[in-house]
Amino acid sequence: MKLKNLVGQRFKERPADCATDSHAFMVRGVYMKIVSNGIFSEYPVLRRITSKIEKIIREEMDAIDGQEVLFPVVMPAELWEESGRYSSVGSELVRFADRHKAPMVLGMTHEEAAVQLVREYGQSYQRYPFMIYQMQRKFRDEARPRAGMIRVREFTMKDAYSFHTTQKDLEEYYQRCFDAYHNVFRRTGVPQVISVASDSGMMGGSVSHEYMLLNEIGEDSIVICNECDYRANMEAAANIVDNGTPDALKELVCVSTPDCKTIEDVCAFLGTDVKKSCKAVVYQKNCDDSYVVAFTRGDYEVNETKLRNLAGAEIHPAVITDNSVLTAGYIGPYGISDKAEYYFDVSLKGISALVAGANKEGYHYTGLNLERELGEVNYVDISKVQEGGICPHCGKPAISIKRGIEVGNIFQLGDKYTKTMGMTYTDKDGVVKHPIMGCYGIGVGRLAASICEEYHDAYGPVWPISIAPWEVHLCCLRADDETVKGVADDLYEKLKAAATEVIYDDRRGVRPGEMFADADLLGVPVRVVVSLKNIKEGKVEISTRDKSVKTSVDIDEAVEYIINLKNQLYAQLG
Amino acid sequence: MKLKNLVGQRFKERPADCATDSHAFMVRGVYMKIVSNGIFSEYPVLRRITSKIEKIIREEMDAIDGQEVLFPVVMPAELWEESGRYSSVGSELVRFADRHKAPMVLGMTHEEAAVQLVREYGQSYQRYPFMIYQMQRKFRDEARPRAGMIRVREFTMKDAYSFHTTQKDLEEYYQRCFDAYHNVFRRTGVPQVISVASDSGMMGGSVSHEYMLLNEIGEDSIVICNECDYRANMEAAANIVDNGTPDALKELVCVSTPDCKTIEDVCAFLGTDVKKSCKAVVYQKNCDDSYVVAFTRGDYEVNETKLRNLAGAEIHPAVITDNSVLTAGYIGPYGISDKAEYYFDVSLKGISALVAGANKEGYHYTGLNLERELGEVNYVDISKVQEGGICPHCGKPAISIKRGIEVGNIFQLGDKYTKTMGMTYTDKDGVVKHPIMGCYGIGVGRLAASICEEYHDAYGPVWPISIAPWEVHLCCLRADDETVKGVADDLYEKLKAAATEVIYDDRRGVRPGEMFADADLLGVPVRVVVSLKNIKEGKVEISTRDKSVKTSVDIDEAVEYIINLKNQLYAQLG
Repeated sequence: MKLKNLVGQRFKERPADCATDSHAFMVRGVYMKIVSNGIFSEYPVLRRITSKIEKIIREEMDAIDGQEVLFPVVMPAELWEESGRYSSVGSELVRFADRHKAPMVLGMTHEEAAVQLVREYGQSYQRYPFMIYQMQRKFRDEARPRAGMIRVREFTMKDAYSFHTTQKDLEEYYQRCFDAYHNVFRRTGVPQVISVASDSGMMGGSVSHEYMLLNEIGEDSIVICNECDYRANMEAAANIVDNGTPDALKELVCVSTPDCKTIEDVCAFLGTDVKKSCKAVVYQKNCDDSYVVAFTRGDYEVNETKLRNLAGAEIHPAVITDNSVLTAGYIGPYGISDKAEYYFDVSLKGISALVAGANKEGYHYTGLNLERELGEVNYVDISKVQEGGICPHCGKPAISIKRGIEVGNIFQLGDKYTKTMGMTYTDKDGVVKHPIMGCYGIGVGRLAASICEEYHDAYGPVWPISIAPWEVHLCCLRADDETVKGVADDLYEKLKAAATEVIYDDRRGVRPGEMFADADLLGVPVRVVVSLKNIKEGKVEISTRDKSVKTSVDIDEAVEYIINLKNQLYAQLG
Repeated sequence: MKLKNLVGQRFKERPADCATDSHAFMVRGVYMKIVSNGIFSEYPVLRRITSKIEKIIREEMDAIDGQEVLFPVVMPAELWEESGRYSSVGSELVRFADRHKAPMVLGMTHEEAAVQLVREYGQSYQRYPFMIYQMQRKFRDEARPRAGMIRVREFTMKDAYSFHTTQKDLEEYYQRCFDAYHNVFRRTGVPQVISVASDSGMMGGSVSHEYMLLNEIGEDSIVICNECDYRANMEAAANIVDNGTPDALKELVCVSTPDCKTIEDVCAFLGTDVKKSCKAVVYQKNCDDSYVVAFTRGDYEVNETKLRNLAGAEIHPAVITDNSVLTAGYIGPYGISDKAEYYFDVSLKGISALVAGANKEGYHYTGLNLERELGEVNYVDISKVQEGGICPHCGKPAISIKRGIEVGNIFQLGDKYTKTMGMTYTDKDGVVKHPIMGCYGIGVGRLAASICEEYHDAYGPVWPISIAPWEVHLCCLRADDETVKGVADDLYEKLKAAATEVIYDDRRGVRPGEMFADADLLGVPVRVVVSLKNIKEGKVEISTRDKSVKTSVDIDEAVEYIINLKNQLYAQLG
């Protein structure tokens, strides 16, 4: 199509409210428009990109025997009550009443709808396995949308659900989907996406992986071993701590620590090593506000996901009042109220003499030995892995922590949903059982934005050809000159006839600089420039957006050259 | 794909709660599943059909220079407040509050979002005309969903919005879209869809058309002239009434009409012709409950849309209490309270002596002459056209009334939205103006269901090949026989290699009758049967679902025959 007809006007200035480059370019290049916080419309340029991503995902899902279906965006609350999620999910689930006062929800995922769709179909073991998927809008009322299309409230997602009769069959299918996901990322131009073990969170189930594009704007912390292939999401990464050979025991002494608000203050005041201190971090259970205390080594952070899983309840940072059973700022393991539930992190194991709160305003203990003071101690993993930490896989102190954007996830759900929702099948042996499920998601818009964040220069995105809005960007620098226009028009027609997607800039009175700036913002991989100067030499200029190619080609050979170049770019994606 | 892997189990019995054949077949054939009243999931069979319809629509929209975009399902209320529709649209618009208590709506159409998207882009006349469209889920909280996918609450819709600087340009584009719609219906197999003039309703604007598939299950009444090409929706059809030469005047007499509840009762009691009576139908304005009385000839029905447009307000049937200014059952034009607003229908014009209510409990007038009793009377068109009525176009008494399903609509919106939402452009002459808009909708699921309703026999749908879930249904009647299975497998592979979409039924132990019943429910246009009997003769049986073809073909020639047959079926759609 012609650029002059393309709906959306590009502009030069970086918008003030864009924290990330991808967001800024996608606003400046008129890819998207904000409608409300975390809610966007897609302009034609972005819609072309998301359509291509959707097509690639569909092909890969069909290739692993997926059958496309469509679930509704709006669902009755009673369906979510069946699974228990109507009450267990927080305010990210939109709840409203319809005209007849029936409670409804907006779909943020579709496990319930998937089970409802196949509950009757799946009554015999002979029907298994099968996988259904959809490409559908979802709404998740995020508290803090951010970074343009990276974290939004409404989005298009491919979500797939597989059903199996055995764990082995689920695992085999999970592996097929695992590979299909890597195909999706390779074909969309980001083969560097890695899969990491993750926490399953509210989805239920046990084994799960996230697909991460390592990028500093990512909001996830990824734990990577530099010595082996261990990779995990921070929430799921086991923390291994070696406190070395224990020192000699010391005497337990209660000392005054006035005006020391943090464990660092206390250690500084006492002149002791923070690595030999015991920090208390206090939470409350959402259900009854009872206290949950996490004790970790002073220099470790609590991993709230691990703590929540262990406590078996949703938790939030505690509010400690004057009448509380806990003494804020001075909480320690010895003499703590038995009204609080508490856990000892693995990072405390093997430290013979700790500095720790004395549960008394203004006082800490020194020389505290957990086993001596409390008897047997059950150490659990409730802390975050640190840079340079020990790999739980190879045991070497080679842990690195990187930022990543989650561009997909897959879960082995088990029977969480089929059990609660009463989906059963009769097995070969006549026994009635619950099928087990896997679920598999990719956010289309987030993937587009992540690719933009990964591939851009100072002037705009550098789209991989497979998802670029067009394959070729044709610039006619002097549309007022009959010869130049003639050559450019001819190229345009020939390229279209050769089934090439061309955006053709034949605007009059637009300076070359502006044309090139627009082309940079659109990020189309192959650029063809027809100008008075190169035409005089019988040439057109052909380059790639990533600057790997820049050459002059005879006019007569231009079409063939462009087609070859285009095919090479596709071939690079494998 | 193989039928045995297709998710969804077909069944024999017609479900009790299906009022229409299409609904029953789409449930029995496992096309769709109800999730809540008027909310459905699509099984793989239907998703294949809707995907094909979506593709055809996209191609036709692209062919008239449409640019695909995507608007969100969830929008902030403030956007709908800009246009005034946040308050003017009734409870079919879902309103809810997000987690920050911000009022939101679910998109039922996207005029506001369209204007918001292009308000900055469209600031210069040089940018016009342009058209943007999307394929998106919509939610409309219908009071009475019905007939399966015909009238639902959540649906996928293609909605398009065009922007123009002149009425002439809008009209030219409107005509292009008008033609593109006929292409869509022709290509999806329903060239018989007609366009009718319609009332624009809440969309605003003046000129609009609905695309109607004439079918007795339709809920719209279509007015068609048998003598000329006049066609209109009942709401928009002008009612022309000829009361012939006036009779002589009669004396106005107030008579007792005890226990006569309707105008028919009154005329029967008095022994007069109901065509010489004046009926009163009473409404109230939604805004202030004030009365609006419609007077029509006794045998005509009030057209509420016309009355609403005339009254300039939403109305509902009146509740008349004992203290009311109106005397229920005895309301007439002479002596009526001046607190009620009232209108005289054209059907009353030229009747010299009417029977009409006397505004007094138990009494009617006879011999009432409107002009004599009231002075000058302004007759307006507020009644429904009748079968055999006079065509407003050719003047002949040749009006027919048919039932139709609305499968699309197009509107000339004018500047209703650009004006209220402050969208302007600077024209050639430097003057700042509001652009004018057209909008164009097609419901994807409803079109699928309407086509099913139009094309089915007693056993299932007969899908046009362009939207059929597959092109060929291959039945292997004896999958346990090596030779039969070999021939069928070979055909399956060859057809797939020839880019033909095949659903292959190679189930073992399934009787031919059940196989054929399943095939009938899937409605695939070309059927190929491989059986022991026809193989012995070196043949396979090839037929069409519509029974126009049924033949035996040599095994070696089967693939070529099938491809030709398939191409013929496509060619028939033009």
